[in-house]
Amino acid sequence: MQAYLSSWEALCASSSVLRFIDSNLRGIGQVMFQDNPLSGALFFAAIVWGSIAAGMPQVAICGALAVVVATLTARVLRVDETSLRAGLYGFNGVLVGLALATFIAPGPLLWWYVVLGAAVSVVVMSATANALKALGMPTLTFPFVLVTWLLLLATYGFAGLGSDALPAEEVIAPYEPFSVSQLGVADFLQATLFSISQVFLKASVVAALLFLAGLAVNSMAAAVAAVAGAILAVVTAHLLGAESDLITGGLLGFSPVLTAVALGTVFHPPGWRVAGYAALGTIFTVIAQAAFNVALAPLAIPALTGPFVLVTWLFLLPRQSFARTASTTGNDKG
Amino acid sequence: MQAYLSSWEALCASSSVLRFIDSNLRGIGQVMFQDNPLSGALFFAAIVWGSIAAGMPQVAICGALAVVVATLTARVLRVDETSLRAGLYGFNGVLVGLALATFIAPGPLLWWYVVLGAAVSVVVMSATANALKALGMPTLTFPFVLVTWLLLLATYGFAGLGSDALPAEEVIAPYEPFSVSQLGVADFLQATLFSISQVFLKASVVAALLFLAGLAVNSMAAAVAAVAGAILAVVTAHLLGAESDLITGGLLGFSPVLTAVALGTVFHPPGWRVAGYAALGTIFTVIAQAAFNVALAPLAIPALTGPFVLVTWLFLLPRQSFARTASTTGNDKG
Amino acid sequence: MQAYLSSWEALCASSSVLRFIDSNLRGIGQVMFQDNPLSGALFFAAIVWGSIAAGMPQVAICGALAVVVATLTARVLRVDETSLRAGLYGFNGVLVGLALATFIAPGPLLWWYVVLGAAVSVVVMSATANALKALGMPTLTFPFVLVTWLLLLATYGFAGLGSDALPAEEVIAPYEPFSVSQLGVADFLQATLFSISQVFLKASVVAALLFLAGLAVNSMAAAVAAVAGAILAVVTAHLLGAESDLITGGLLGFSPVLTAVALGTVFHPPGWRVAGYAALGTIFTVIAQAAFNVALAPLAIPALTGPFVLVTWLFLLPRQSFARTASTTGNDKG
Repeated sequence: MQAYLSSWEALCASSSVLRFIDSNLRGIGQVMFQDNPLSGALFFAAIVWGSIAAGMPQVAICGALAVVVATLTARVLRVDETSLRAGLYGFNGVLVGLALATFIAPGPLLWWYVVLGAAVSVVVMSATANALKALGMPTLTFPFVLVTWLLLLATYGFAGLGSDALPAEEVIAPYEPFSVSQLGVADFLQATLFSISQVFLKASVVAALLFLAGLAVNSMAAAVAAVAGAILAVVTAHLLGAESDLITGGLLGFSPVLTAVALGTVFHPPGWRVAGYAALGTIFTVIAQAAFNVALAPLAIPALTGPFVLVTWLFLLPRQSFARTASTTGNDKG
Repeated sequence: MQAYLSSWEALCASSSVLRFIDSNLRGIGQVMFQDNPLSGALFFAAIVWGSIAAGMPQVAICGALAVVVATLTARVLRVDETSLRAGLYGFNGVLVGLALATFIAPGPLLWWYVVLGAAVSVVVMSATANALKALGMPTLTFPFVLVTWLLLLATYGFAGLGSDALPAEEVIAPYEPFSVSQLGVADFLQATLFSISQVFLKASVVAALLFLAGLAVNSMAAAVAAVAGAILAVVTAHLLGAESDLITGGLLGFSPVLTAVALGTVFHPPGWRVAGYAALGTIFTVIAQAAFNVALAPLAIPALTGPFVLVTWLFLLPRQSFARTASTTGNDKG
Repeated sequence: MQAYLSSWEALCASSSVLRFIDSNLRGIGQVMFQDNPLSGALFFAAIVWGSIAAGMPQVAICGALAVVVATLTARVLRVDETSLRAGLYGFNGVLVGLALATFIAPGPLLWWYVVLGAAVSVVVMSATANALKALGMPTLTFPFVLVTWLLLLATYGFAGLGSDALPAEEVIAPYEPFSVSQLGVADFLQATLFSISQVFLKASVVAALLFLAGLAVNSMAAAVAAVAGAILAVVTAHLLGAESDLITGGLLGFSPVLTAVALGTVFHPPGWRVAGYAALGTIFTVIAQAAFNVALAPLAIPALTGPFVLVTWLFLLPRQSFARTASTTGNDKG
C-alpha cells in the first residue's frame, strides 16, 4: 500500500494535472479526516454507487463539480499551499454539492447554486480556521453546515429553486408523535451501516462498505471507531425510544460516527481513557442530533453534521485542562 | 461565623469524605457565586423544602445526584484541583439535575438522563472556560443552559422520556395574548421572593428566605443586590405591561436577580457608579427574558438562565474600556 | 470641500457644543462607514425627508434622540475619546432609534424604549469591540442588530408596547408562496435606489439620492460601490426568482449594499481582485438575506442588517490567509 502511494506521490510531483486530481481526492477523503487519495477514491466510488442506486446520478456529479470548484477557488484566493494539497479546502465543498443536489430539484439554477456554494465554502473555511486558530480548534465541517443551511433556507424565498426533498409546502409544521418498534437483527445491521453511509448523505449498504474500506486503507483505528460509534449510536437511540425509521435510515447515527472517529482517533491518541471519553461524546451527539432535529423542524431544514461539530468542539476544547488524560502517548495531532 | 468555617476547613483537610461533601456544598453555593459550604447547605435546604412543598421530592434528589456525579466526573477527568474544591465544576450540574427533574416525568430514563447531563456539564464547563479564557470572561451558567436545552429538546424525539411540564402535545404553538392586572402588595411581595427562589426553579416563600440567608452568611452585599434586583425586575416588568402570572410566579425576575448579583457585587467592587451600571443591566435582562420567552416559544423549551448569561457577558466585556468606571477601589475579582 | 471641513474642525475645537454636534453627525455618517460630519448631515436630511414622506415624523425624532443618548452614554461610561469623536459609539444608536420607531406604535413607552435601547447599544458596542479585538474584526452593525432583535421580540411579551409594523396577532405564521413578475425599467430603478435608502429603513427616491450625496462628499468609491452593490443585488434576487414586492421595496438589497461598500472600499484598497471578491460577498449576502427572512418568519422579527454582518465577517476573517490578494497597495485600513 505504502509503495503504491509513494509512486503516486512521485507521479503527482511531475504533473500539475495529477497533483490537481490528488488534491481533489484528498478533499473527499478529508470528509472523514483521511489525508489519503486512495481513501478519497474509495469514498467517491461509494458516492457514485449510492447516488445511482437512489436514482439520483446528479448528486454524484454535483459532488464532483463542487470539490473541483472549491479547489480552484482556493487556488485563485491563494490559500496556504500545504493545506490546499492536503484537501482541507475541498471537503466542505464536496459536502455542499452532495447536500444541495440531494435537497433541491434538478434544474439550471441548481448548478449555479452548487458553484456559488462551493466557492463560498472556501471563504468560510478560511474564516473559520482563522477565528478558531487562537483556540487551537479544527474547523470540522462547520463551513459546510453554515453555507448549506443558508442556501437551503433561501430556497423558500426563491421561486427559481424548487426544493425537492424539503417540505416546501408547509415550512412550519408541528413535530409529530411517532411509534417505536422492535429492532430485528437485519434492522440493526442496516441502521449501523446506514449511519456510516449517511455521513455522505447516502442510504446504501454497498456504499457503507466502500466507506469503511476507504477508512481502513488509511487508518484501521478510524474504521473500528466508525463501526463502534455507529453501534453505540443505534443502541443509545433505540434505548431512549427514538423513532425506528430514523434509526434504521441512519439519520440519528451519522453525526455520532463522525464524533467517534474525531474524538477516538484523530485528535487524541487511541487508548482506554480516550475511548471512554469518545463514547461519552458519541452518546451525547445522539442527544444533540435529536435536539437539532426538533429545533430545526420549524425551519424545515436538515441538521446536517451540525450536532457533530457542536459536540466535538465541546469535547475538544477542554484538552488543555485534561492534559494528563489525553496526552498519555504524547502524540496529540490537534 | 468565620471561626466555624475555619474549624470546618480543618476537618475537611483531614478527611477526604468531608472534603468531597465540602466541594459539593460549595458547588451548590456557586449557583449564586458563593464559595462557602454554609451557603451551599442553606441553598440545599431551600431546594429540599421547595421540592417537597411542590409535591416533587424527586427534584431535590436529582439535584443532589447531579452535583455528586458532576464532582466525581471532574475528579475522573482530572480538572484543576483548586477550581474543583471551590465548587466551580458542580454548580452547572446541580442546575441540570433540578431542571431535568422539573420538566421531565419521573421514570428510569430520567435518572440516566440526569447522570448523563451532569457528566457532560463538566466537559462543557471546561470547554467554556477555555474558550473564554482569552477574553477574561466567566462561564456563568452557560454550560447548564446549553446542556439542558439540548437534553430537553431531544425529549421530543425520544418516546422513552415523557416530558412533564413541557407542552409536548403541541410543540409549536402561537404566542398567545394576555391581560395585565393590578399588582397588590401581597402580589408584589410574592413576585419579589419568587424571583429569588426561581433561580433554583422553586416557587416558595420559605425557600426564598433560605436562599437569602445563604447569601447573607457569605456576602451581605449579594443578599441586598438580590432583593434590589428582584424589586427592580418586578417593577420594570409591570410597567412594561408583562403578563401578571409570569411576574407573580417570579418567572421574569430570576435572570435579572442573577445579573444584579453578578454585576453589582461579584465582578465589580460595590459603589454608586457600579450600582447604576448593574441597574441598567438588570432592566435589560427583563427585556432579554421576555425576548427569550417569545423566541423559544416555537421550540417549547424554557429560557432557563440564558438571558442572565447573555446580558451579563455583554455588560462585563467592556470592562477594559470602562476601566476608570469600575476599578475605583482596585478590588476587581473577575 | 476640504477647506470647509478644516474650518468646521477648528470651530469644534473651540466649542464643546459644536464638538458634541460633530460627534453625533459623524455617528450618523458611520452607519455607512463615513467619518465625516457633512456625510452625517446629508444622511440625517435623508432620514427627515423619508420619515415625513412616509407620514412618520416620529421616526426621525427617535433617530436623533437615540444618537444623542448614545453619545451621552458613551461619555458617562468614559469610553475611548478618539472613537467617541469619530462617531463609533453613535451609529448603532441611531439605527436602534430608527428601527424601534418604525416597528413600534407611537406612545410614551416607545420613548423610554428608545432611550434604553440607545444606552444599551453603547455597552454592546464596547463589548463587541473587545470580543473581536483579538481577531482584528470590526463590530459592523452587530450591536444594533442584537439590541433591536431583543427589544422587538420582547414587545410580544409586553402589552404596554403595541408593536405597529410587526404582525403581532399571529406571531407564528407559515412562510407563504408568492408569484414572480417581470421587472420593468422603472421597477428596476426603484429597486436599486430603495436598496440604498433601506439601509436607514427608508423607502424614498429622494432619500436615496441624499444618501448617495452623503457618500460621495466623503468617498466617491463608496458611492460607486453602493450603486454597484444595489444593482448586483437586484439582478441576483430577480434571477433567483425572489418575490417582486420584496425586490422593488429594496428589502433584499440593503444588506448587500452595505457588504459591497464594506468589502469593496472600506477594509480593502479598491482594485479588480477586491471588486471580484466583494461581488461574491454581495451575491452571497442576497442569499443570506433570503435565508434570514425565512428563519426569522416564525419569530416575526425583521432581519435588519444581520445578513450583512454575518457575510462581511465571513469575508473579512480570511484576510490574513489571502494576504497577497488584498494588500496589493499596502493600504489596508482594517
